[in-house]
Amino acid sequence: MAQQKATNITWHDGAVTAQERRKNLGQKGVTVWMTGLSASGKSTIAVALEQVLLQRGKHAYRLDGDNIRHGLNKNLGFSAEDRAENIRRIGEVAKLFADAGLIAITSFISPYAADREAARKLHADAGLPYIEVYVDCPIAEAEKRDPKGLYKKARAGQLKGFTGIDDPYEAPTNPELHLRTDQLSIEQSVEKLLELLEQKGLLKA
Amino acid sequence: MAQQKATNITWHDGAVTAQERRKNLGQKGVTVWMTGLSASGKSTIAVALEQVLLQRGKHAYRLDGDNIRHGLNKNLGFSAEDRAENIRRIGEVAKLFADAGLIAITSFISPYAADREAARKLHADAGLPYIEVYVDCPIAEAEKRDPKGLYKKARAGQLKGFTGIDDPYEAPTNPELHLRTDQLSIEQSVEKLLELLEQKGLLKA
Repeated sequence: MAQQKATNITWHDGAVTAQERRKNLGQKGVTVWMTGLSASGKSTIAVALEQVLLQRGKHAYRLDGDNIRHGLNKNLGFSAEDRAENIRRIGEVAKLFADAGLIAITSFISPYAADREAARKLHADAGLPYIEVYVDCPIAEAEKRDPKGLYKKARAGQLKGFTGIDDPYEAPTNPELHLRTDQLSIEQSVEKLLELLEQKGLLKA
Repeated sequence: MAQQKATNITWHDGAVTAQERRKNLGQKGVTVWMTGLSASGKSTIAVALEQVLLQRGKHAYRLDGDNIRHGLNKNLGFSAEDRAENIRRIGEVAKLFADAGLIAITSFISPYAADREAARKLHADAGLPYIEVYVDCPIAEAEKRDPKGLYKKARAGQLKGFTGIDDPYEAPTNPELHLRTDQLSIEQSVEKLLELLEQKGLLKA
């Protein structure tokens, strides 16, 4: 396409590629998918990981209940169908962030293996890296922590379909990383995550 | 929270803020919302804008039919309800990108003023910049271009509810930028967009 003499704008046909975005950001895009029981430590680890990546000049974004359930997915409830659609949309949005070159960190219980596998496949089909992190804490310990009082409510029958109480959690069988949060400190968990991101070459373009 | 001696990881309670992400990226997050008829030039301008931003080391991401209709919104059709939900989800996702600190560029016909106003309000409520760009081309000219043969199909009755033919396009009454693409070159349109982004201080942290 001809360049206009009047401007200093040049462009050519063809979209910017994911590879060009990566180079520009100095990193590769990836989805870090945290899965685990309520109170297992997903969000705490996600928050700490985002901080540590920022300290290193890397670019991340967290998708969690706060910015998804009250926004994109506010028209979804807790039926089986809506739960699957909830995770499907999160997988699609995380994929867009990874394609944009960011480190997308999702922290949702995501209890069903089939839903998680669908998110993994979305990324694989697009050639985008995907890291499943099993944030593993025995339910007795999670229930003892219970920072939001949800287990207590579920035990009292005030919450129905609560994962680990009256709805199943299907533990990952082959996660990229398995964090026993009853045995590891937050710092140790984040260190393992960073090591994995570095090992896979994701923290450079 | 106490620091582990064993690691070089330090973190504190409290999530990374949008302000910190901006500083890290050297820019502010914003949604650039292109609206206009089919073949008005939205996607061409979006592609060119992304290229020019990348040349300047800025970080953008385009949301368009290719990555949305076949992904996040693949379970939506073209009923009035689904069209509204299509634009609602795009608004929510663009908002997440703007919150992440990126320049989100959306290129969808988005013919209804109410849907566009909802997207604008989402951003305003979150304190995120939002720029509506009316990509304006007389329908006679758009129909002459017709790169995908869609107007021809619509005129032949093979496409129902086609914007500008048998479905209305509600032109923006107060867009941040009004581009007459029958009078401006792509380069001139992109230059106007760049000027506006600079004027608003969005290309620095």
